[in-house]
Amino acid sequence: MYQHEDDSFMLHTDLYQINMGKTYLEQGLEDRTAVFDLYFRNMPFDNGYAVFAGLQRIISFLSNLKFTESDIDYLRSIGYEENFLDYLKDLRFTGKVRAVEEGEVVFNNMPLVQVEAPIIEAQLIETALLNIVNFQTLIATKASRMRQVVPNDMLMEFGTRRAHEFDAALWGARAAVIGGFDATSNVRAAKLFGLEASGTHAHSMVQAYGDDYEAFKAYAETHKNCVFLVDTFDTLKSGVPNAIRVAKEYGDKINFIGIRLDSGDIAYLSKEARKMLDEAGLTDAKIIVSNDLDEMTILSLLSQGAKVDGWGIGTKLITAFDQPALGAVYKLVAIENEAGELENRIKISGNPEKVTTPGKKNVYRIINRNTGMSEGEYITHFGEEMKEDPLLMFHPLHTMKRKLIRSYEAVELMKDIFVDGECVYEQETIDDIKARHAASLKVLWEEYQRFLNPEEYPVDLSKELWQIKQDLIEEASNKKLE
Amino acid sequence: MYQHEDDSFMLHTDLYQINMGKTYLEQGLEDRTAVFDLYFRNMPFDNGYAVFAGLQRIISFLSNLKFTESDIDYLRSIGYEENFLDYLKDLRFTGKVRAVEEGEVVFNNMPLVQVEAPIIEAQLIETALLNIVNFQTLIATKASRMRQVVPNDMLMEFGTRRAHEFDAALWGARAAVIGGFDATSNVRAAKLFGLEASGTHAHSMVQAYGDDYEAFKAYAETHKNCVFLVDTFDTLKSGVPNAIRVAKEYGDKINFIGIRLDSGDIAYLSKEARKMLDEAGLTDAKIIVSNDLDEMTILSLLSQGAKVDGWGIGTKLITAFDQPALGAVYKLVAIENEAGELENRIKISGNPEKVTTPGKKNVYRIINRNTGMSEGEYITHFGEEMKEDPLLMFHPLHTMKRKLIRSYEAVELMKDIFVDGECVYEQETIDDIKARHAASLKVLWEEYQRFLNPEEYPVDLSKELWQIKQDLIEEASNKKLE
Repeated sequence: MYQHEDDSFMLHTDLYQINMGKTYLEQGLEDRTAVFDLYFRNMPFDNGYAVFAGLQRIISFLSNLKFTESDIDYLRSIGYEENFLDYLKDLRFTGKVRAVEEGEVVFNNMPLVQVEAPIIEAQLIETALLNIVNFQTLIATKASRMRQVVPNDMLMEFGTRRAHEFDAALWGARAAVIGGFDATSNVRAAKLFGLEASGTHAHSMVQAYGDDYEAFKAYAETHKNCVFLVDTFDTLKSGVPNAIRVAKEYGDKINFIGIRLDSGDIAYLSKEARKMLDEAGLTDAKIIVSNDLDEMTILSLLSQGAKVDGWGIGTKLITAFDQPALGAVYKLVAIENEAGELENRIKISGNPEKVTTPGKKNVYRIINRNTGMSEGEYITHFGEEMKEDPLLMFHPLHTMKRKLIRSYEAVELMKDIFVDGECVYEQETIDDIKARHAASLKVLWEEYQRFLNPEEYPVDLSKELWQIKQDLIEEASNKKLE
Repeated sequence: MYQHEDDSFMLHTDLYQINMGKTYLEQGLEDRTAVFDLYFRNMPFDNGYAVFAGLQRIISFLSNLKFTESDIDYLRSIGYEENFLDYLKDLRFTGKVRAVEEGEVVFNNMPLVQVEAPIIEAQLIETALLNIVNFQTLIATKASRMRQVVPNDMLMEFGTRRAHEFDAALWGARAAVIGGFDATSNVRAAKLFGLEASGTHAHSMVQAYGDDYEAFKAYAETHKNCVFLVDTFDTLKSGVPNAIRVAKEYGDKINFIGIRLDSGDIAYLSKEARKMLDEAGLTDAKIIVSNDLDEMTILSLLSQGAKVDGWGIGTKLITAFDQPALGAVYKLVAIENEAGELENRIKISGNPEKVTTPGKKNVYRIINRNTGMSEGEYITHFGEEMKEDPLLMFHPLHTMKRKLIRSYEAVELMKDIFVDGECVYEQETIDDIKARHAASLKVLWEEYQRFLNPEEYPVDLSKELWQIKQDLIEEASNKKLE
């Protein structure tokens, strides 16, 4: 099946990471500690916040990180020398990782994950960390946007068949639940993560029986909870009436939850179906809809008065269809010099937004004690003390935008995940993570939560960190004039 | 880490497949043979053809299909009864699978995979098959589009960090190579599939050394093949001159392949860099570019006279950014009746494109012996003989569009993959698959290959199959009038 044994994720990385590793080793720099920030520059979907997800997968990845025999054999086959391979054989992750916790609302230009490790190790894990955080955060954010438009309805993730291969379906289902979904159709995701699984039957079953009535009856004979899919032949002339007929015939023998509509004019059909169900006395029966939905079509249906109790969302959620990539990056912000001290580093770019913020950092959320609401994120140079004085917060580019916070609590957002290569973070349940997401939204003013044209949430630098950045920009810019 | 052991892909399916299985078992229909077609209705990216991929993964999935103890335990925990669980414990895939081979050009509304199996088995595998084919075919098609615009340049897949989790990066890299890419940065994909791995160093290495010259020198000290990334500080004032300086200083000690540009105005910078390299006598040095490229930006750069020899493509390829989902479906087309005969089934829809074509099928590509080129696909009812008479091909909806092919070869496109649950298909190398893709393009007239506004390729039904469909539509439509 494969050219080499599939027994490791160690090579789930870009080749340049391996090649840089060889350079660092042979130049004697392999043990230099480097600090990298993982962050994104632009808000996904122009949303006012994003929802961090991916930590469980990162922990699993880093905990099992080693070059297997088959990895080494492969690298040998493409020309790497024995001294380098010998070094890789013994390589383990020995560094420190700090990260925001899953479910937390996060913003552009704040570090989400901070890696402090020998530079070879820090580089080798870059690609996988970005791969994980970019996807999972994207889907959790998309799910949270959908939750914003229907705070109380059932939301079900139905996207596996359109997901980008197996892992996307699996981790995407989990991310959807973190972002506020109630259930997933993916049974393996439900099994592994303790999610609620959802689904009854497909069109094919109605086709197999050749008739709505026979199919619904067969289902009712064999299941307590029944949702009948009513649009295989003719929704209003056959599907809905036969669902009602079976619901009445079976009465208390089944729990008739309701019907599902998967095609056609959902606004019209749901209103007609609602009338028919109500007239039959089935006022508790729910109407669940699915068919290429996203937050915009949901809103549009609601504005047309569609009668919907639950939404099954596939393609548009699991692929983040309108923006299928989050552009998180992983940037070197400090490196140990010959004297053993961390030296701040910057990357200059012709594009001002792409200039990195140097230095190892802490990230605080500033909660105003008077309102209980967040004033924004405040990023400090690591080791800087948060004093209890009034706090000056200012926009890092438009510095005239500033405010003084007199009574606040500074909540540190990044937690220790790995210390000396050992995981020190206790795994959470999905309910804990969902609860964190809900709680983190509660301290956000509404203007950051609306899903169209939200206000820009402050992500500010401390005066000290801002100055460090200015000085390095100055230095690099003058060098270019030489 | 997980709630249950992660030891199986059996539950990588939608819950409704399990629930329908329970109905079929308890209704005594579990052994009824069903035939399903897997196909898509609309061409991805409005391209004139798609590139089939996913078969290797399907074979691996089906070969290992069983409910593990942990799967059964999980299903028990959510309420399934023992008699159903006992049945599932012993379930294996025993059916027949026919499929188009990987790399083949394929079109909308032709079956790509045909499953003929006891209905429970056929349903349980639906979700995974769609998940695999939808993603891999999408990426192979996107890659082939990019290859169309640069037939001879190096094309490298660099997308892992933006892919939708690990599997998408892995199988997407393979699909990209099937579609015509030369290499991938993903080392695990290269290891497992025998692809060429590609990559040298990142900005972080230049930042770590603090200086282009020092960084390039360190790389040249430790590697034979050198591509220097020149845009960390200042492309034309520092990056390119220092790349040239190191290339000259090291001379034959290294193989100076060239430089990479990853930001800024690629058209301008590549032309300036080309001049500088040429003036330094480095006329063989290549210019490789990367930075959110796709087939449109490549064309735009070429039209501006950009001097580029190789293209590193990330986000836009690996996420199929402009259309991140292929909508392949899996439809019941026939089912065994009580007498043990296959009975054709149709699904009617208000939307005429969504009406299914009933019946078990064969798919032929009709090669005109006079031109050696394809006249289109010709789908027959299984068992229908292809006679050597002139062949009437007609459009299945616009039947006045018709042609008579006098001398042709009918090439059967679907091969046996599983027979009686056993894989009978010999695994191919990636080179075989790449070669098939190249060969399959050779029989396509140019008007189907252009990447903007291609002609619609004929996917026709035989007279017999067309009539079967009409009769079932007639029957169902009359029933609705009753």
